[in-house]
Amino acid sequence: MIKIHHLNNSRSQRILWLLEELGLDYEIVPYTRDEATRFAPPELKEVHPLGKSPVIEDGGKVIAESGAIVEYLTETYGKGAYTPARGTDDYWRYAHFMHFAEGSAMLPLLLALYTGPLGEAAAPLHPRIFSEIDNNFSYLEGEMAGRDFVVGDGLTGADIQITFVLEGANANGLLGNCPNLARYLAAMQARPAYRAALERGGPYAYGPKT
Amino acid sequence: MIKIHHLNNSRSQRILWLLEELGLDYEIVPYTRDEATRFAPPELKEVHPLGKSPVIEDGGKVIAESGAIVEYLTETYGKGAYTPARGTDDYWRYAHFMHFAEGSAMLPLLLALYTGPLGEAAAPLHPRIFSEIDNNFSYLEGEMAGRDFVVGDGLTGADIQITFVLEGANANGLLGNCPNLARYLAAMQARPAYRAALERGGPYAYGPKT
Repeated sequence: MIKIHHLNNSRSQRILWLLEELGLDYEIVPYTRDEATRFAPPELKEVHPLGKSPVIEDGGKVIAESGAIVEYLTETYGKGAYTPARGTDDYWRYAHFMHFAEGSAMLPLLLALYTGPLGEAAAPLHPRIFSEIDNNFSYLEGEMAGRDFVVGDGLTGADIQITFVLEGANANGLLGNCPNLARYLAAMQARPAYRAALERGGPYAYGPKT
Repeated sequence: MIKIHHLNNSRSQRILWLLEELGLDYEIVPYTRDEATRFAPPELKEVHPLGKSPVIEDGGKVIAESGAIVEYLTETYGKGAYTPARGTDDYWRYAHFMHFAEGSAMLPLLLALYTGPLGEAAAPLHPRIFSEIDNNFSYLEGEMAGRDFVVGDGLTGADIQITFVLEGANANGLLGNCPNLARYLAAMQARPAYRAALERGGPYAYGPKT
């Protein structure tokens, strides 16, 4: 059975969601962030030397990095759904958003998060950080106009990747001017598989306000 | 002919390198960072709304994000080389490093870069930033022991992705305790295609010291 090493309030929530979408049996190995530092506990290093979550184990394979896990699960168990046919225009759109999510899009969000504790001392960075955030979410807002999914007309791994980014942005009140993104995020969070993953994963700070 | 929108001292240098490895004809559209802010010029937004480099154009397709461009070029023009066979253990190692490069690995490097101008005001962040950098490069150093390439025994897109990360680290003196990474980086930078890309691309701050 697939084992998912799950850290509370982390990217591993998206993998629980994907496992539910795929209808797979899985075992959760839970970890809790240090209350003071918010770091992952050192035990995660015993699973993978990076010491991060998510990590999955499946039949002797140990896979880390959200993007790689999403590709592995969808391509191994998705029966051809969840990934556009390779080489099509939809596939390259998918590849773009798979990399955009944890590349360009997360960077300024994490810069804001990490520099937050500096307070006013970080003020010189704010114009750059917030213009990058605005740039990324304006772009995404435009891309999601009239769309129910990031690519094509069904759920793909790109939705799994992008939804976590939007949850991080939403938790920081950054989607106020992005009605398409707010609508899309609500639709993803309303999916039965998403809800089932919330039940299995325990408290999640970035989930829907219910 | 493929068009590569190339910003000086940026990730687009890695795409020039890949185009040379693939032996493709290409046209460089050059852009120069603002001398004061180091930002990309606004003209890049006319090519792709993210306004970043690299972006390529090929037969009407416009593709942004390094990881997606590397996948597109290797899968479209690589004749089966440069990407491990899908579904193999090597493929999942490749997928991991394709995402690790611009996900986990670049984040603390960029945090150090962005917070550098704050000087001592950023000191409270340094333990976290530098422990993350050490964590990532210790991991990579171990992974590259006895290896000439990130995956398997030939160049893949993962080498293209990881080399830029190492160039960023090396420029900041962070590879002093990583002999495997220093050896690997020197070998990549010595490749004829890498050298040819440097000739075509113009001055590059993160290249080999010659």
